[in-house]
Amino acid sequence: MSDRIKINEIKDPNIVKELSLEELKALCQGIRDEILSNVSENGGHLSPNLGVVELTVALYRAFDFPKDKLILDVGHQCYPNKVLTGRSLKGMGAKDAVSCFQNIHESIYDCYDAGHSSTSLSAAEGFALARDRKGEKHEVVVLIGDSSIANGLAFEAINNITARKEKVIIVINDNEMSISKPVGSMSLQLKTLAKVRHNKEEIPTGRAGFEYIGPVDGHNIDELVKAFEQAKASTRPVLVHTLTKKGKGYSYAENDKEGIYHSIEPFDLETGKVKNVDNNHISWTEAFANITDEILSSKPNTELLVPGTIPGEKLIPVFEKHEDKAMDVGIAEEHALSMAGALALNGIHPIVDIYSCFLQRAYDEVSHDCARFNVPMTVLVDRAGLIDKLGATHQGIYDVAFLRSIPNVTIAMPSTIEEGKALYLESFERNEPFFIRIPSEKMRRVDEIKDISLDYKRFKFVKRDSDKYAVVAVGPLGKELFDKINESKTPLTLVNPIYLNDFNKEDIESLKNFKKIFVYDAYSTKEGFVSSLFSSLLENGFSGAVKGRAIPNEFIAHASISDLLNDLHLNISEVFEEMKRFFEE
Amino acid sequence: MSDRIKINEIKDPNIVKELSLEELKALCQGIRDEILSNVSENGGHLSPNLGVVELTVALYRAFDFPKDKLILDVGHQCYPNKVLTGRSLKGMGAKDAVSCFQNIHESIYDCYDAGHSSTSLSAAEGFALARDRKGEKHEVVVLIGDSSIANGLAFEAINNITARKEKVIIVINDNEMSISKPVGSMSLQLKTLAKVRHNKEEIPTGRAGFEYIGPVDGHNIDELVKAFEQAKASTRPVLVHTLTKKGKGYSYAENDKEGIYHSIEPFDLETGKVKNVDNNHISWTEAFANITDEILSSKPNTELLVPGTIPGEKLIPVFEKHEDKAMDVGIAEEHALSMAGALALNGIHPIVDIYSCFLQRAYDEVSHDCARFNVPMTVLVDRAGLIDKLGATHQGIYDVAFLRSIPNVTIAMPSTIEEGKALYLESFERNEPFFIRIPSEKMRRVDEIKDISLDYKRFKFVKRDSDKYAVVAVGPLGKELFDKINESKTPLTLVNPIYLNDFNKEDIESLKNFKKIFVYDAYSTKEGFVSSLFSSLLENGFSGAVKGRAIPNEFIAHASISDLLNDLHLNISEVFEEMKRFFEE
Repeated sequence: MSDRIKINEIKDPNIVKELSLEELKALCQGIRDEILSNVSENGGHLSPNLGVVELTVALYRAFDFPKDKLILDVGHQCYPNKVLTGRSLKGMGAKDAVSCFQNIHESIYDCYDAGHSSTSLSAAEGFALARDRKGEKHEVVVLIGDSSIANGLAFEAINNITARKEKVIIVINDNEMSISKPVGSMSLQLKTLAKVRHNKEEIPTGRAGFEYIGPVDGHNIDELVKAFEQAKASTRPVLVHTLTKKGKGYSYAENDKEGIYHSIEPFDLETGKVKNVDNNHISWTEAFANITDEILSSKPNTELLVPGTIPGEKLIPVFEKHEDKAMDVGIAEEHALSMAGALALNGIHPIVDIYSCFLQRAYDEVSHDCARFNVPMTVLVDRAGLIDKLGATHQGIYDVAFLRSIPNVTIAMPSTIEEGKALYLESFERNEPFFIRIPSEKMRRVDEIKDISLDYKRFKFVKRDSDKYAVVAVGPLGKELFDKINESKTPLTLVNPIYLNDFNKEDIESLKNFKKIFVYDAYSTKEGFVSSLFSSLLENGFSGAVKGRAIPNEFIAHASISDLLNDLHLNISEVFEEMKRFFEE
Repeated sequence: MSDRIKINEIKDPNIVKELSLEELKALCQGIRDEILSNVSENGGHLSPNLGVVELTVALYRAFDFPKDKLILDVGHQCYPNKVLTGRSLKGMGAKDAVSCFQNIHESIYDCYDAGHSSTSLSAAEGFALARDRKGEKHEVVVLIGDSSIANGLAFEAINNITARKEKVIIVINDNEMSISKPVGSMSLQLKTLAKVRHNKEEIPTGRAGFEYIGPVDGHNIDELVKAFEQAKASTRPVLVHTLTKKGKGYSYAENDKEGIYHSIEPFDLETGKVKNVDNNHISWTEAFANITDEILSSKPNTELLVPGTIPGEKLIPVFEKHEDKAMDVGIAEEHALSMAGALALNGIHPIVDIYSCFLQRAYDEVSHDCARFNVPMTVLVDRAGLIDKLGATHQGIYDVAFLRSIPNVTIAMPSTIEEGKALYLESFERNEPFFIRIPSEKMRRVDEIKDISLDYKRFKFVKRDSDKYAVVAVGPLGKELFDKINESKTPLTLVNPIYLNDFNKEDIESLKNFKKIFVYDAYSTKEGFVSSLFSSLLENGFSGAVKGRAIPNEFIAHASISDLLNDLHLNISEVFEEMKRFFEE
């Protein structure tokens, strides 16, 4: 490629304005190579980023960023932007390395950032309104995928933008892929628009307030720049419809039907296969997917609902096997939960499999459409706890705190897969929304999961070696702490709460008589289980001392889980030492 | 009207199938009279209900409820349904009287219920899917207004329904009114559809999976029944577009441009004027609307955002006066908050005025799009606390509990309007999302609100008459308790917390040394301020006794606020007695 521009040494992305088309092509190849080499090394979002290389270059060629504002929806498509603005993808998501999404703290070219889908249009309307109020002159440009635009929030924003006069330019990256399959009428409508235009018919969206430009080949820089220039010339909101190829330039990703290369672990560039497969370990997510398979096979009148995250939930085989009782609703968390409530009212037991960080978009629906009816359903709260690399927007540490504010719900977290399975089965015996938190970790693989029984809504007193000092600890890390305590032969009473809200009176009474209670919950903020337990203890007459070690109620930036645990002093060794000091004081 | 059917004595609504068109007209008049006489007496939703009288009758004539399922969106349009199914509207919303929305516990004809907007389509998909899974045969019919369908949740549901095969019949009540003005592209699209059909052109939505029937005169029973029969005959999802007249049959409501008759207090039928206007009292909501007016006049770079509730927030005059800095986004709570974050990032201070019960639909946006950026904004959490008549879906008692789970936010509640104004001004001096809870009560009207100063994020120690016994009490009812304590000359330390989360260490240290602390918060569930304070006290070494009196973490059914306070034993007299017993023990 040209000497004029070296990947990772770009000082000013506006240099793309001066390059020849040949040089731009070489630049795009360089960006692709950079993405492929880094993602194959570290893992990350591959296909969406390979699809927007030319698009990103063309945006910089047509617009004047950072004076103009570029807002990337979610940021699954931000890697070319990072490379163009001089940021190395090396070690992405590790502590002190570049983050996985747009990041306003990282670059003047990142005017906004998000990790949840479909916020970009609301953001754009905010940016455009502020610009007009302050009499500034610049463009506000959004790049959004065809699946993100099908979310309710994006729709509300479009609905609002079309009723107003603020100029925004919405570039749709229509790759017909999205996180898993494109779902619903919005993708049909995009197809219709492209077809109508192809036939040189009038574009119906024009009636609704937008100027429609497209469809444009999203890999043709020249065409893209022309479309963007046309968009700049318009005085009203514009929609530029670009068609891109998923995983462009990497054949395995281009031919990926299931979305495996959307977000992938480190893989071999030659074979496209995931590297370093550790057959001795399995993610909790996958272990739960296996139980879901069994449950769908054995229990009639169940329905699995997943909001667009089938590959991430390791559910691809489950969907293939149970297509008659599994539904991908797309990025529509609200609808998933609202519909789940209605299914449950009608005798179908829903299983909603959803990331903790995305469940919060359905807070109202969990409350108003599920818990209020107090109907039976299972919600698998996946990726609960601190998250590897993805940072503040993806931490699964708030759900206990927000769910405990909702009446009727049960919140539980297993420390072993046996407990996990027992909870999963228990949720079918109960009549309320039953949330089971799935740790975002790996565990030792087991051939068969033993059936064990757990007392419903009761703490598990693992060991009663002291009537003065008790340790209450949550989840797999809690179990690790117990193991360390057992090794050290410290005589303590050990409690694995399992159930994290709405405590049984007898359990609180049992704990009330201890002089000191140490609580360890590395999976939630303090506003979750710890606060719940402490207020319950105090209210019931406990007058001893407590120490609670949980995640502070903050937004926690990206790093590996072990770095996060170290930085927060929540790793087992430090917690064990702190616990000893507390009991010795 | 005919002897064959007497309002309030209807045993089986299916009798409408046997009546002549003349008799049906008389029946409709009878329903209107019943609605007008009851709403003028008790207050309630008037215009939406007057608009759907013929629609409701026609639905019962065409379908076989309760075998077929009728889902009314929100339920602002459920009064004719109640009357037709033999339920008296008398005293609606009072304890033991009929509820204000559909209610599954009230009638076999209410298969679903909701108080928040736009859940009906997700519910319908759930009902239809369950029906098909179980091999049942019946229709699922939704009645939804043109504004409710413009919400993100409804869009997600439509998007999903069109991609599936389950048959649902969606009846749109297009009255171009909604709660306030119709907003956005969805209403434009409905207009377009009607126009295209009028010109006998092909309907474009057909492409997106729906059969479109309409537009139909929503007051012509014969036409409506024909449209519904056509819808029944279809094998795929159907959209029946009906045009209705807001407030039909009552001229003041028909000519109401501002939405005053959408939901109205008791009024005089002859003059249309609100009765019993008490000039000595004013709602907190209105008092805050007046301060909002002052703030918009005096502070540059502010923007008022309201999600479709301008009349309820008493903001009609504010919107008239400040149309350049006030925006109604329609029923789009998520978009409002997401856009607010972007405005704040760009130096425009947003004021979001939103009901507590609807704020919860924007939980994710408050966290991900506002708090995460830690940007300055003011959120007025209106109708905080127990709510008059509207019941479980409208209680404003959960927001402290769910907001405290979000980092960076400040949550405050005044006990006097002077404190309210001070907090409002304070929110402009701070850099975080600042939530001010507005009680759903009335207060004595004051001519001018005195300026007072409050210490930021500090409890207000109102009186320090004891170093052993303290009372912490929230909001105006907290102040009433203090007044009663003062009258009784009981020597106690009185604390008005004002700030409800993320406590100042010194305040907790001050409270730590008390032997007994009584906490009274009649505005939130225990999971809110009380739990937060108790866990904070225990964690900081408090070893005395506490008693917390707050709202239990439950869904609380409809009644007047005073009945609710009595039923929950949270009225001042009972709480005062309980407090005395606690300190005497």
